[in-house]
Amino acid sequence: MGTSTPGGIPADVLPAELLGAMAYGELSAFGRLSADSRFAPTLRDRATFAKIAVGAFGNYALISGRLTEMGRDPEDAMLRFQPSFDHFHERTPPGDWYESVLKAYIIDTVSSDFYRTVSAFLDAGTQQFVRKVASADQATEALRILLMRALRDDPRLASRLALWGRRLVGEALTQVQRVALEHPDLRAVLHDGQAKAEVRRLTAELADHHGRRMTGLGLAA
Amino acid sequence: MGTSTPGGIPADVLPAELLGAMAYGELSAFGRLSADSRFAPTLRDRATFAKIAVGAFGNYALISGRLTEMGRDPEDAMLRFQPSFDHFHERTPPGDWYESVLKAYIIDTVSSDFYRTVSAFLDAGTQQFVRKVASADQATEALRILLMRALRDDPRLASRLALWGRRLVGEALTQVQRVALEHPDLRAVLHDGQAKAEVRRLTAELADHHGRRMTGLGLAA
Repeated sequence: MGTSTPGGIPADVLPAELLGAMAYGELSAFGRLSADSRFAPTLRDRATFAKIAVGAFGNYALISGRLTEMGRDPEDAMLRFQPSFDHFHERTPPGDWYESVLKAYIIDTVSSDFYRTVSAFLDAGTQQFVRKVASADQATEALRILLMRALRDDPRLASRLALWGRRLVGEALTQVQRVALEHPDLRAVLHDGQAKAEVRRLTAELADHHGRRMTGLGLAA
Repeated sequence: MGTSTPGGIPADVLPAELLGAMAYGELSAFGRLSADSRFAPTLRDRATFAKIAVGAFGNYALISGRLTEMGRDPEDAMLRFQPSFDHFHERTPPGDWYESVLKAYIIDTVSSDFYRTVSAFLDAGTQQFVRKVASADQATEALRILLMRALRDDPRLASRLALWGRRLVGEALTQVQRVALEHPDLRAVLHDGQAKAEVRRLTAELADHHGRRMTGLGLAA
């Protein structure tokens, strides 16, 4: 490669870091979504959720393939991110089907925002790849429809889900901060000295976009 | 249509019954496999198992599409088979990764045998479709390799897995008998009066094929 990033680290280290995080994120989303599909009130909803899980696995396979092409071992690239993702899931077990759907929607949208923002720091090829994976997702719309339908059928859900949404995004952003600050390469690209301020700015932006989506659903963010 | 089966019922009832059972079998296999992928000792094994789950979902989607083409509602076609499959899974929770792998292998192979045998009673189109779905499966070989590797790495596994295999096939065949005898249309195609004898013959055949596969793995069936 020969080029280097603002932080002075080789240009292929950061893409591998980001892709490792994304790959594990998708593999763990697959596990979570498919396990939660059991809560679905009908077989039709169960199949819809299963299909979204299958889409997450498809993303995992794409990202894992890209890591292999780059000469990286996908398992190695994922392992360092496993604790943060697993910790997030352990701390946020959905209580029922509706909480599962909102969790899936929030993971899907917040992580797409995160990947798009961080990929802006990377080479054009990686940036394009990340944008393709993040937007190939038809999951977002399917989940939004499930949520809208649930809220229309039972308006009392809104206050419980609004609370759950706040809890989830709080936990998610805590993990994003942890990942960004604990990994030296990601920390470096975030201008090191100002890393904390940069991460604060990034999480504020993610929270802002999330807030607008929740308001769009009629949930107080 | 217009044709009828040996039992005198319309030729399109039985295919829908069989396809309904297959569709729910694949959807529930998806749920089971993806949930069990969490037990995997490495992320690589987890991804292998996840991929097999994704294959089961692909089969579900194919079968569900065929039911829709036939003018049947896939959810309706599946619902009557849900209790038997769910009951089987509730009675056989795997204790660890190796038990999950053997369970997946046994479900995959015994159900392929079952579908192939039963489809022989049906019209040529359905027969061809069922054979295609049952053999499109690359899962069988992937599971066999996981099992062979596990047994090579830890020969003490053999006796525990042999016991587990006997337990699983016993439960599976009990459910097959229940499904075949409780559903009037399936019962009819099995020549009604001799239904019990036919089902006994069918389960003996399934048990025999299963036994040979277990012996091939070095497990006493």
